[in-house]
Amino acid sequence: MRVLGIDPGLTRCGLGVVDGALGRRLSFVTAGAVRTSSDWELSERLLGIERGVQSWLDEYCPDAVAVERVFAQHNVSTVMGTAQASAVAITCAARGGLPVASYTPSEVKAAVTGSGRAEKQQVQAMVARLLALEAAPKPADAADAAALAMCHIWRGGAQDRIARAQQEFHRKAGTARRARGV
Amino acid sequence: MRVLGIDPGLTRCGLGVVDGALGRRLSFVTAGAVRTSSDWELSERLLGIERGVQSWLDEYCPDAVAVERVFAQHNVSTVMGTAQASAVAITCAARGGLPVASYTPSEVKAAVTGSGRAEKQQVQAMVARLLALEAAPKPADAADAAALAMCHIWRGGAQDRIARAQQEFHRKAGTARRARGV
Repeated sequence: MRVLGIDPGLTRCGLGVVDGALGRRLSFVTAGAVRTSSDWELSERLLGIERGVQSWLDEYCPDAVAVERVFAQHNVSTVMGTAQASAVAITCAARGGLPVASYTPSEVKAAVTGSGRAEKQQVQAMVARLLALEAAPKPADAADAAALAMCHIWRGGAQDRIARAQQEFHRKAGTARRARGV
Repeated sequence: MRVLGIDPGLTRCGLGVVDGALGRRLSFVTAGAVRTSSDWELSERLLGIERGVQSWLDEYCPDAVAVERVFAQHNVSTVMGTAQASAVAITCAARGGLPVASYTPSEVKAAVTGSGRAEKQQVQAMVARLLALEAAPKPADAADAAALAMCHIWRGGAQDRIARAQQEFHRKAGTARRARGV
């Protein structure tokens, strides 16, 4: 399973691609950021993010996308830009028919460090360790995006397995009921 | 000049198309709304809005798009959805190479009623009157979108004329300076 993690932002939109599956070793593919300047018009910035995200989708062909969930209670001056950047990224993924999951920052922290309250530095250190890298990808948004991808591989992967197992159970149960003429 | 006004929202995204120019009579083309259900995943909702806005752009070929500016101080629970819907709409327009203007609610109210503090009902009544309609377009978001388009025809059109006049002045001034060998 290949996941593209996206840490949305207008100035820097972090992107990280990780391969993996529950119970298997994670494999780092790449990470980086799409940048837009605050000198640009909002429409140009959003278009720049769309083009950047689309080019990553085209190049790395992920199976799923994991985006950081945006909260309104964060810093009001940046949250609007974050919401707008995330909307563009989510729409790109949805247009390509990809499943889109979203995780809160504390879900991501808990996934990679074991604690939802971990410091940023601890998250960066664990991203490097779990992906067998000498250092966390730079900028920090790229490492956060990789952490989102890892979070989805573990949490989303587990959820997918449960969903598949339930479907399988209901399918078999249905077959059994039909065989019994119920 | 044909303007598509967009009053962004996840549940109802208002759209209104108006033809006009400064000093000429406005001509109403159409207005309506793209709707998405709160039962849908966010990615499906954003994709639905993108498809809706794109189909209006394709069908009505506006020269410019005017979007309501989203403020973070509004109702926090709805502002995120509004920011996300507006991002998708703005990106659609920018992708098509259209100029995108944004106006605050009070700028729109001032444009159509003369007062930035006008009541919603007053705005609706003036939209109907100025567009020579028996009643304002329904739902209210469609009428608000038409008001945004009207606001841009008057304000943006004036700004465009000033910008063009200034360019012309500087071009002539430059020609004059060159002719004098300055």
